[in-house]
Amino acid sequence: MRTSIATVCLSGTLDQKLVAAREAGFDGVEIFEPDLVASPLSPEAIRTRAEDLGLSLDLYQPFRDFEGVGPERLEQNLRRAAAKFTLMNRLGIETMLLCSNVATARSGDEHLAAAQLRKLGDVADRFGVRVAYEALAWGRFVDDYETAARIVRLADHQRIGLCLDSFHILSKGHDPEAIETISADKIFFVQMADAPLLSLDVLSWSRHHRLFPGEGAFDLGTFMGHLARTGYDGPISLEVFNDTFRQADPFATAIHARRSLRWLEHETAASLGSGPSSRAAPMSTAMLPLVESPADVSYVELRTGDSDELRLLLMQLGFRPHGRHRSKQVELWSQGAARIVLGAPDSEHPQPTVAGIGLTVKDPAAALLRAEELFSAVVPREESEGEEPLVGVRAPDGSEVFFGADRGSVPTWVDEFGSTAAEHADLIERVDHVNLAQPWQYFDAAVLFFRAVLDLHTEASVEVAAPVGLVRSQVLRSDDGILRIALNLVPSGSGADAILPQHVAFATSDVLSLARAARERGFSPLDIPANYYDDIDARYQLEPALLDELRELNVMYDRDDAGEFLHFYTHSVGTVFLEVVERRDGYAGYGALNAPIRLASQYRHRANQGDLA
Amino acid sequence: MRTSIATVCLSGTLDQKLVAAREAGFDGVEIFEPDLVASPLSPEAIRTRAEDLGLSLDLYQPFRDFEGVGPERLEQNLRRAAAKFTLMNRLGIETMLLCSNVATARSGDEHLAAAQLRKLGDVADRFGVRVAYEALAWGRFVDDYETAARIVRLADHQRIGLCLDSFHILSKGHDPEAIETISADKIFFVQMADAPLLSLDVLSWSRHHRLFPGEGAFDLGTFMGHLARTGYDGPISLEVFNDTFRQADPFATAIHARRSLRWLEHETAASLGSGPSSRAAPMSTAMLPLVESPADVSYVELRTGDSDELRLLLMQLGFRPHGRHRSKQVELWSQGAARIVLGAPDSEHPQPTVAGIGLTVKDPAAALLRAEELFSAVVPREESEGEEPLVGVRAPDGSEVFFGADRGSVPTWVDEFGSTAAEHADLIERVDHVNLAQPWQYFDAAVLFFRAVLDLHTEASVEVAAPVGLVRSQVLRSDDGILRIALNLVPSGSGADAILPQHVAFATSDVLSLARAARERGFSPLDIPANYYDDIDARYQLEPALLDELRELNVMYDRDDAGEFLHFYTHSVGTVFLEVVERRDGYAGYGALNAPIRLASQYRHRANQGDLA
Repeated sequence: MRTSIATVCLSGTLDQKLVAAREAGFDGVEIFEPDLVASPLSPEAIRTRAEDLGLSLDLYQPFRDFEGVGPERLEQNLRRAAAKFTLMNRLGIETMLLCSNVATARSGDEHLAAAQLRKLGDVADRFGVRVAYEALAWGRFVDDYETAARIVRLADHQRIGLCLDSFHILSKGHDPEAIETISADKIFFVQMADAPLLSLDVLSWSRHHRLFPGEGAFDLGTFMGHLARTGYDGPISLEVFNDTFRQADPFATAIHARRSLRWLEHETAASLGSGPSSRAAPMSTAMLPLVESPADVSYVELRTGDSDELRLLLMQLGFRPHGRHRSKQVELWSQGAARIVLGAPDSEHPQPTVAGIGLTVKDPAAALLRAEELFSAVVPREESEGEEPLVGVRAPDGSEVFFGADRGSVPTWVDEFGSTAAEHADLIERVDHVNLAQPWQYFDAAVLFFRAVLDLHTEASVEVAAPVGLVRSQVLRSDDGILRIALNLVPSGSGADAILPQHVAFATSDVLSLARAARERGFSPLDIPANYYDDIDARYQLEPALLDELRELNVMYDRDDAGEFLHFYTHSVGTVFLEVVERRDGYAGYGALNAPIRLASQYRHRANQGDLA
Repeated sequence: MRTSIATVCLSGTLDQKLVAAREAGFDGVEIFEPDLVASPLSPEAIRTRAEDLGLSLDLYQPFRDFEGVGPERLEQNLRRAAAKFTLMNRLGIETMLLCSNVATARSGDEHLAAAQLRKLGDVADRFGVRVAYEALAWGRFVDDYETAARIVRLADHQRIGLCLDSFHILSKGHDPEAIETISADKIFFVQMADAPLLSLDVLSWSRHHRLFPGEGAFDLGTFMGHLARTGYDGPISLEVFNDTFRQADPFATAIHARRSLRWLEHETAASLGSGPSSRAAPMSTAMLPLVESPADVSYVELRTGDSDELRLLLMQLGFRPHGRHRSKQVELWSQGAARIVLGAPDSEHPQPTVAGIGLTVKDPAAALLRAEELFSAVVPREESEGEEPLVGVRAPDGSEVFFGADRGSVPTWVDEFGSTAAEHADLIERVDHVNLAQPWQYFDAAVLFFRAVLDLHTEASVEVAAPVGLVRSQVLRSDDGILRIALNLVPSGSGADAILPQHVAFATSDVLSLARAARERGFSPLDIPANYYDDIDARYQLEPALLDELRELNVMYDRDDAGEFLHFYTHSVGTVFLEVVERRDGYAGYGALNAPIRLASQYRHRANQGDLA
């Protein structure tokens, strides 16, 4: 699959954008006109620069408000187009994007539009260029791709074809299946964007909230399947207008964008494999190495300067230490199948606190290969002789994901730590979920990374009110629920990231006994206000004995259609805390209603410690 | 007018919110339930705390999903309500907000809803409390205030009344005039919020984008006029859900909120003065001191560590120095009626670079009084004997606005600077506009401040693409255009504020001659790429001679329905730059289409200087 990206997706100067696209491995770029106009590089210099970088210049865009106009304006528009064609010749760009008219069209007559496009085709012919006509979702008369396709068919000019943009088609709820009725030689260009489902006017939605494929709610695999079945084999380009990506580092965004297209290629191949193949599909697509759901979260690695405090908490929750690793500066604590690898921040792990997640998988090599094919950076790791090989990659925020082979109930690498005693079993059984706070510039990239690399599914995102702003939370999980990762988007306000810690939640089947046992070991949980218990009593009318016990132990309560959820938190140690959860009868959530209470309590606790300005 | 604010408008803990509300001078607060539930203070302690602070607790909110349900759920709901009434008794709160049912209502029968509300009224009676029923804009059956008013009338219970919320009424485009048909004793509570006009689903619009009165697009003065004519004399409360305010400093937000209600009181009084007064209006409202539009921008004060560079630029643009002030560490440069007071940052003026704006007004004392009534902090200023008194206040970002009396063509304070020579006249005539970059947490507050304190009007806001993100720009202006202030919202991404400087634009009637004269004095303007001139040529088909001259002098061009705009920029000096503009034939804009080119050029220039990481 040939890949391209519009320069508008990336921040910085045009030159920075070109270099970032090249470094991420894109084959080409679309030149977004404002980026060219603002550049001090001449068109010829841009052409040379792209050639030197090995990038093709696939599209010049956008040209607006051409068709459906009166004769006088048509003449003006043809002159305007000729000026752009001259420019395209200087750039060496063959294809120009023409958006359907939003401003100056007086008529929606398809024959008129086709006749005017034919005239445009004649001018384009003089310059040896071609025009890709795109139905904008908010076009004045032409706002769906089937109309645009009819007009192009009527124009019947070799220089006039279509541009298909997934956003304009799917945002309006149009069925992409009719793409298959379009002749491949009339599809001049394809732009792909994902988006969250919003009830916003489609122009604002398009201009501010597009996402890279795999980060939103559109079914782009099916879309691509229809496209491939036409026989289209041109570039698949990203045109993603997004307020966050406009601010983020362009080199990181370009990698993130490239990953989304690789994932999309996989989805396309999967879609083609299953759907009816009405025509040959010359578009080269390749599946990613398939990976099965992790059998286990084999460990979570925490890096903190407050290890002593964390050790105490682990001990109070019933964890036991295994001692230091034989060759690395980390130690292991475990209980049941829950394992915490504890280390201090160092130059390789400056942040975040949840520095890594270890997964037990059937085929670590396949998992690594999939991650590498998704443009993940491999974490260099040295193993001494006789140590279990672990392979891993870096998530967008710098944390690590490691894959180890499934070798029975206890990973063999456990023996690399001081104590070789059998693992200690108590009330905690395993890791339930891991919560990774993400800075604003990594959130969408992290959603894509975990979804694509680990083949996870996204649950509906929720918003949680914290004393420092709204926190958006997105859970990704494996089908069987063995792996659940909650990504929290830290409010962008200055300093807010300092007070949104990350956390690990452990699963137990008896949280009340565990809380009681922990208390006997001196544990003091995060304080939950008495008002909270009055509130859940009013809401759920709990058994008085249960309510008393919850209150006494600072255990929180939630309920969904399936069952109940009981959970408690530790205080934060630096920027990390721990949680213990009990899911009764298939409760599927994470206690989102309780999260604001927890955030407020943590905020007060830090304020009391004087950590807040 | 009695004022109140919902705790949800402010960030922080409940206690911080109460203190912030008190410090801003609110009479009372609404307790937003999640704030209470998350608080470690008991209801009794909250009551005492509010009493100690002199705040009334005006409303407990929200209670949801009560009416229109089946008999079994009704019993549950009545029990749930009784628990909340118990809590309200402990808090000493008399009124509870009941939102119209969005989830559990099975019937929209108004008689059924009224009968159920009557039962709720009976329970409320036992606790001595009352219920204010509000039609949510997204209520399942009840989504407009007239329906809610009919249900309350049918319920016919002294403990059951209405809550009116401007957002729920105006967001749906409902006419607020029918408020006048409601009996004042049935209006238990009033919540005011402004909002920008968005085509977003009303729930998301309400939860994320409300603004304080005066910051959005709603006609709240007219709304308040209708309300006052009912005879309502209860609290006017702010309930503003806003993602930014949730993150901002609660003390600054509370002042900002209090200012909005004082402005609203003024608008109400103005509305009552002009409309038909069908009933007595006991709501005490007071106009603000009226101020006329400034006669002149008498000076702009710049504080920068790079004064030498700025002096050179001013000289090249034809300004002449007057010398140092006789008692203050600032100097004056002028040309025509454009005056720049130049100083260095000091402890009183650490930032921003555009440290102050001096306005010539008819009555400085009235202008100051208006600003003070709008809760503006007065700037302490010492005058030595014989110096012109200037009075001023601080804008939300810390910059200053000073008022001086109109004493003819040249302000008398000019004589306080070294040279007493007559002012030097050249091609620059006056200040055209001032552009103040605002950090994210001050933007809306700044819109309200300038609009209310200086009685300016807002123009439509625009978004401009910069290499570091989208910049939202909002112009405020006096009717006659003498004073124009553009507020730019800096993208929130880290570090972006460092590269969005502020600027002063000067008006001339011959920008080309001025640019040429400046060049003869060694001036080198901000580089504008050749691609830009090719683009405007394609767009406007300019006279070749004019195009050549623009290109040669790095002058930019724009056009609107009225006329033409020619302008050029200086390089940035620290975080400030200068612009010279020529408005031909009543051009009313600011060259928004050219702003991205300028921002990209500034970005490159700083990158070349190595200012960027």
